[in-house]
Amino acid sequence: MPKKVDHEARRQEISEALCRIAGTRGLDGASLRDVAAEAGISLGRLQHYFRTRDEMLLFALRYINRLAGDRIRERIEALTEEPTPREVLRACLSGMLPLDDRSRIGLLVGAAYYARAVHDEALRAEAEDGIPRLRAFFADQLRLAADRGELPPERANEDEAMLLISAADGLATYVLLEVHTPETALRLVDLHLANLFGAERPPETGAGRVVTTGGSVR
Amino acid sequence: MPKKVDHEARRQEISEALCRIAGTRGLDGASLRDVAAEAGISLGRLQHYFRTRDEMLLFALRYINRLAGDRIRERIEALTEEPTPREVLRACLSGMLPLDDRSRIGLLVGAAYYARAVHDEALRAEAEDGIPRLRAFFADQLRLAADRGELPPERANEDEAMLLISAADGLATYVLLEVHTPETALRLVDLHLANLFGAERPPETGAGRVVTTGGSVR
Repeated sequence: MPKKVDHEARRQEISEALCRIAGTRGLDGASLRDVAAEAGISLGRLQHYFRTRDEMLLFALRYINRLAGDRIRERIEALTEEPTPREVLRACLSGMLPLDDRSRIGLLVGAAYYARAVHDEALRAEAEDGIPRLRAFFADQLRLAADRGELPPERANEDEAMLLISAADGLATYVLLEVHTPETALRLVDLHLANLFGAERPPETGAGRVVTTGGSVR
Repeated sequence: MPKKVDHEARRQEISEALCRIAGTRGLDGASLRDVAAEAGISLGRLQHYFRTRDEMLLFALRYINRLAGDRIRERIEALTEEPTPREVLRACLSGMLPLDDRSRIGLLVGAAYYARAVHDEALRAEAEDGIPRLRAFFADQLRLAADRGELPPERANEDEAMLLISAADGLATYVLLEVHTPETALRLVDLHLANLFGAERPPETGAGRVVTTGGSVR
């Protein structure tokens, strides 16, 4: 295996160890030494890959987000041959919720990141870069929906995109705090989408495309 | 001063020290000893009031939320003689955003609480109790608005209340992460309210009541 690939693979293995700690006793107070122990390597070896806890946290967050992105893309591709913008948005928003162990762990690592990033400019850069890209992608889907007559044009913009992202983020937070269940969070994402696009469509069964009724909202 | 009041006052002073740390270098990694130093007391003295870091964090969070509640009530009372449900909701939602130093510090303490609570059942109880109460209050305001013909009755429910809370929570998160400004967060809260209640009303100027136009939403 080439050296660079090997380096990346080792960093991913360490990230997986960090995720196991996040999923069990939590990252609050977990040191580089704790993660090294979980990964079955020495502290010195771990520091060959990550010099600081923040560096490791950031790598793990990006790694998790990349895997989450892959899962969302797979889910969209599995939906239908040609998913509607609404279906694409629903798949993305669902991917932001802790609906399974993997995404739950991603959010637990995200909680540790958030607690650090509010006090660290370098860590904040990650969100400052990533969220506007997600917002732009969501806004593109909204504009596409408007072009297809599935959404009133005045709601196809970055502000509505940011409200969708913010609501999903808040709903995910309240699942982790056990204020409501993952199922409730998903139901409320669907309510937000219904408020935006109009009455709910039947859930995707894979049994064929549902013909959209056009731009009538409410 | 009676002993019980004195005890409460000392706990509040320590909470203020914790807030100062939250507002400057951050609570991540801040120990009981650090907070004692900031409060100008010995560690032993601090432990007379708080046995653990979590106990202190929880007290500080409740203290901050109570002060925030007081500020929101004052703001509502300053609005008009008889604020509309929409005005009450807007004041509450604004209070959830980091629009000034005080609410910003509250959210920074909240971030430290969140990172701990996702791994601690006892700490989660605070959110499990508080958020449903806020949701019920919001839902009551929505029902009142529907009774007044200012909101379609089908949107006056706990689900819409939870979407409002979740959106504000997410929007506040993205202010702390510097994804957007406090002003943008407030603008998006207003957009969410406009989507719910109908076209925006002029901002409250204190120059008199604005007559609502009734239940026409879009």
